[in-house]
Amino acid sequence: MSLANRPDIISFAGGMPGNELFPVEDVKEIINNLSPQQWVDAMQYGPTAGYPPLIEAIKAWLKGKGFPVETNQVIITTGSLQALNITSKIFIDPEDTVLVENPSFIGAISAFRSYQAKIKGVAIDADGIVIDELKKELDTTNPKFLYIMPNFHNPAGLIYSSQRREELLTAMANTNIPIVEDDAYGELLFDDDYKKDIVPLKCRAQNEQQIIYCGSFSKIFGPGLRLGYMLVPNEIFRNAEICKQSMDACTPCISQVLAHQFMISGRMQRYIDHIRPIYKKRRDFMLETLQRYLPKEATFVRPHGGFYIWVKMPQGVDETELLKLVIDAGAVFVVGATFDPDEQPNGHIRISYCNTPDEQIEKGIKIIGDTMKRLMAR
Amino acid sequence: MSLANRPDIISFAGGMPGNELFPVEDVKEIINNLSPQQWVDAMQYGPTAGYPPLIEAIKAWLKGKGFPVETNQVIITTGSLQALNITSKIFIDPEDTVLVENPSFIGAISAFRSYQAKIKGVAIDADGIVIDELKKELDTTNPKFLYIMPNFHNPAGLIYSSQRREELLTAMANTNIPIVEDDAYGELLFDDDYKKDIVPLKCRAQNEQQIIYCGSFSKIFGPGLRLGYMLVPNEIFRNAEICKQSMDACTPCISQVLAHQFMISGRMQRYIDHIRPIYKKRRDFMLETLQRYLPKEATFVRPHGGFYIWVKMPQGVDETELLKLVIDAGAVFVVGATFDPDEQPNGHIRISYCNTPDEQIEKGIKIIGDTMKRLMAR
Repeated sequence: MSLANRPDIISFAGGMPGNELFPVEDVKEIINNLSPQQWVDAMQYGPTAGYPPLIEAIKAWLKGKGFPVETNQVIITTGSLQALNITSKIFIDPEDTVLVENPSFIGAISAFRSYQAKIKGVAIDADGIVIDELKKELDTTNPKFLYIMPNFHNPAGLIYSSQRREELLTAMANTNIPIVEDDAYGELLFDDDYKKDIVPLKCRAQNEQQIIYCGSFSKIFGPGLRLGYMLVPNEIFRNAEICKQSMDACTPCISQVLAHQFMISGRMQRYIDHIRPIYKKRRDFMLETLQRYLPKEATFVRPHGGFYIWVKMPQGVDETELLKLVIDAGAVFVVGATFDPDEQPNGHIRISYCNTPDEQIEKGIKIIGDTMKRLMAR
Repeated sequence: MSLANRPDIISFAGGMPGNELFPVEDVKEIINNLSPQQWVDAMQYGPTAGYPPLIEAIKAWLKGKGFPVETNQVIITTGSLQALNITSKIFIDPEDTVLVENPSFIGAISAFRSYQAKIKGVAIDADGIVIDELKKELDTTNPKFLYIMPNFHNPAGLIYSSQRREELLTAMANTNIPIVEDDAYGELLFDDDYKKDIVPLKCRAQNEQQIIYCGSFSKIFGPGLRLGYMLVPNEIFRNAEICKQSMDACTPCISQVLAHQFMISGRMQRYIDHIRPIYKKRRDFMLETLQRYLPKEATFVRPHGGFYIWVKMPQGVDETELLKLVIDAGAVFVVGATFDPDEQPNGHIRISYCNTPDEQIEKGIKIIGDTMKRLMAR
C-alpha cells in the first residue's frame, strides 16, 4: 500500500477528489431509471469515438462555454490520460522532442516518455509559461507539440493570466506546432475575479491554430469512471479515432451512459456548484494553517482553484530530507523534483488539500511546519 | 452508422454478445447493495494493477481451473485489447516481427501494427497452428512473441487439439519467445467432449515458459464494462504495471467493483450456465440453416463454442463480390481477407451467430446461400 493511502499517515500527496464527495445518490438514481435500450448501450460495445448522446451533451456543454464545437470534433477517452496517449501516438516518433512546462503533470511526462519522447521543460512564472524561454526552445528544438495546463496547474497551482495566454497564442501561431491544453481542473474555480482569465486557449485561438483540448470527468464526477475527452480539429480526429480503436476499442460504455444522464439531467452542474465551495473552504483552511505553522521564509502562491499549493522551501531546507522526517512524523507530500522532466530538485513541494479533512490538514501542516523550523534551526 | 448496426440489415458481422442477454437485473441488484466503502472504491482512482478484491477473485477463479496463480500475477486491463497493447509496448520496437495465426483477430493485428510491428501470419489447419510452418518462421524471423487464440478461434471457429497444444509448447520451449494466449471466448464451450482439449496452454506449460494469458469479461458479463486481465510471470508483471500506469492510470473502478460482486456472489457462474445453452442453440440453428441454404460446395467447420463460423467459398465465388450483393439484399458478414495480416483474399467469410435472433438467422443465411448459388450459376 502506498504511503498516500495508509490510514495512519496524513496525506497531502494525492490528486484525488474527496472520498466523501462522490455523487453516489445521483448515480443510484440514474442507474435505477435507465431504459432497456440504455442498459444495452451501457453493457455492449460502443462506437470508437464515444457514445453519441454523450458526445452531443459534451458538445452542448462546451458550446455554452464558447468552444468552437462546429469546427472541431469530440472523441471520448478512457480518462484524459488516454487522450495524452492518443496525442503521443499521433505525433511522437522515438527521440522526438515534446515541450512541457517545468514543473509539469507527472502522468503526462510518463505518457510522453513511454513513446520515447525527449521531454524538454520550459520555465513558468506566476503568470504562466515564460514566453522568452518558450521562444528559445521553439528556435532550437523541433518539438512535436507543447503540453500545458493553463488552469489550476498541477503542481504549481497557478492560472495563466489573460495576457500570457494571448502572448502564448501569438508565439505559437504560424509555427504549426500543436498545443495540447489540459483542463482537468477547469470547473474548479474558487475566486470569481479570475473568471475571464481561465477562458481556455481553445476558445481564444483562431480556428487555424491546432489546439488539442483535453477535458475530464475525474474531478467533476469520479475518476473511477475513467472518462475524459478531447476536442480536436478534424484532421487530428481521424487519426485519433484510429489510435483509440487499437487501444481499447471504446471507452467504458457504462461510464458514458451514466455521464450522459448526469449531464443532461442538470445533476452535473448542481454537483459542481456543490463541490466548488467545499474545495474552496478546504483551500482557505489550508492557506490559513500554512500561514500559521510554516516559517515565514516558506512562500507559496494562493491557488484560485484546483487541488494544489506549491510551496517554496526556505533557504537551507532540503525537500527530500524534509519529506523523510515528515513521513516519520506521520504525514506525506510530494517533492518538486517529481514534476521536473529531468527529476532535478527545484526547492519546492506540492501539497494537496483535495482529499484531506480539516482536522487532518491542521495536524499534518503543523508537522510539516515544525519539521521545517527544526531543519532551519540546525 | 456501420452496416453491422443498421436495423434494416441482418448482421452476421459483429463479435458482440446478444443484446438481450446482458445480466441487467444482476447489475441492478449489485449496485443497490454496494456498501459506502465499495462506492468510494467504484468512484475513486484505484491501484494500477487492479482492484485488489477483484484480483483475488480472478486468482481464485483461475486457480480452480488449474492455472499457476502462485507463480504468476494478475493485472486487470481496460478490456483484453489493452492487454495486447501492454504486451506490444513491452516487447515491440519498430520493425520487430510478431507471429500470429493466419487468419487472426483483427483487433490484435491492428494493436500490434500500431506499435509498428511487422506481422507474419502462420497457417492453421483444423487442429490449430501448423507446427512445421511455425518452425520455419522461428528459424527465419526473430519474433518478439507469438499471438494465438487456441479456443474458439476468431475468425476460424476452431479449437486446438490437445496434441497440437503439446506440440506447440514443445516447439516454443527453449526459444525464450513468449506466447500470448488470448482466451476471450474460453467459457463458451458448447460440446462437452472437448473439455479436455480446451485446457489453456498456460495450465499445461512448464513454469519456465513465458506465457501471457489474456482473459476477458466481455463475453461473460458485458463488453461495455471494458474489463480484461492478464496472468503473467513476475518479470513481465513489473513492466506491464508501468505500461498500464502510463496508459490510463487504472482500469474503470466502477466496472471492477461490479465484476467483483458478480464473481463472488456466484452470479457470474450462473450467468455463464445461462448463456452457454442459448449460444449453443443459436450455433445449432445457424449450422442447420447453413446446411439448408448454402450450396453443398460451400464448406465449414462445426465450431464447438464461441461466436463464429468460418465458411469456405465454393469454387468460382469471390467473397468480396458476394458481400456486395448480399449487402444489397439486406445482410452483412465479414470477408476473410480482413483477418489476414497482409489483407490477402483467402476464399473464406466469417459469419457470427452471437447477436442475431433465429428468424433473422434464417432470413439472412438464405440471402447468402441464394446469392452464392446465383454467382456459381454464372
